[in-house]
Amino acid sequence: MPKVVDHEQRRRELADAALSLAARDGLAAVTTRATAAECGWSTGVLNHYFSSRHDLLLAALRRAGTLQGQAYQQIIATDADARAKLIAITESVLPLDDRRLAMTRIFLFFYAEGAAQESEREEIAGFLARWRLVIRSTIAEGQRNGGLDAAIDGEAVAFLLQFLTDGASLEAVVDPATMEAVRSPGFAERCVDTALSARR
Amino acid sequence: MPKVVDHEQRRRELADAALSLAARDGLAAVTTRATAAECGWSTGVLNHYFSSRHDLLLAALRRAGTLQGQAYQQIIATDADARAKLIAITESVLPLDDRRLAMTRIFLFFYAEGAAQESEREEIAGFLARWRLVIRSTIAEGQRNGGLDAAIDGEAVAFLLQFLTDGASLEAVVDPATMEAVRSPGFAERCVDTALSARR
Repeated sequence: MPKVVDHEQRRRELADAALSLAARDGLAAVTTRATAAECGWSTGVLNHYFSSRHDLLLAALRRAGTLQGQAYQQIIATDADARAKLIAITESVLPLDDRRLAMTRIFLFFYAEGAAQESEREEIAGFLARWRLVIRSTIAEGQRNGGLDAAIDGEAVAFLLQFLTDGASLEAVVDPATMEAVRSPGFAERCVDTALSARR
Repeated sequence: MPKVVDHEQRRRELADAALSLAARDGLAAVTTRATAAECGWSTGVLNHYFSSRHDLLLAALRRAGTLQGQAYQQIIATDADARAKLIAITESVLPLDDRRLAMTRIFLFFYAEGAAQESEREEIAGFLARWRLVIRSTIAEGQRNGGLDAAIDGEAVAFLLQFLTDGASLEAVVDPATMEAVRSPGFAERCVDTALSARR
């Protein structure tokens, strides 16, 4: 009987291998050859799923987005108060471990690509909009149950917290002083409390 | 008598032309051919100054850094109070006109490059360190002359204001909702006041 190949699972495995390489050795190390080798497969098999390095990186971007979406859902489902959830949301994005470092590197690549190509720009803009929605919903929930001041401007906080987190993450990839600041104790708390100072 | 060519001036003109193209049509439009045409020169002349598109972009990055350094100096030299100077420093970076949009696009390109190449990483890290120094010095001056609260944590504010400004600028290039927020009245003031909430 021929072996049944789960194509979706193979694509996911290859995207995960690309993210592992990105975390370990940087994005330049993510070639189709190295990614195939990381899975123990031939480049020929990989070429069946991705027609180019760019296609592979795009799959890795979407995989990172999916994993990040799962991280948001896990945080939202907890019983923590709104401020604690905002801190967890912020920490889930900052490049504090391999998953998040790979995500930052691949998003940085597509920010630069998106500045030139409309389809990639839209992927990034969609990711940013979902992130702000998660922040805004968490603030609105906190304001409904009394955990957060009703005068807090949820819309403004969503932008400010996103800029703080994303600015810090993107800079940390190229600037050791920023990485040190990002990895210092209480950094996410400081970002959240700073952003929450925005009032209507 | 042979015409005397000012090579430094020519390099600067080409770098300025590259920045004009980056502002008008995006970074993908900055080719050696298009940049030479923008100056009314042949590609051959351009090749005498820059051996590749990458070299040209690097010259444009450094030119943008020099222009930004001049913008900082002009702001620092005014009689405005420290908060007003911080707002002007922030506005001088945000992509609010062609010069600043070109700067954001070229820095975004080199952030992504710098994630892979050490020499470019160092250029970007140096630019970020100078920017934070300008912010910190302005805060220290404001604290000396009484315009700013002595309890403000200048080091933390420098990072926070840089993350807010850079996160907003980089995202604005790929996300229309962010560009709208960045260009709304009072945006730079909000970034500065938000960052200034950081206390020791």
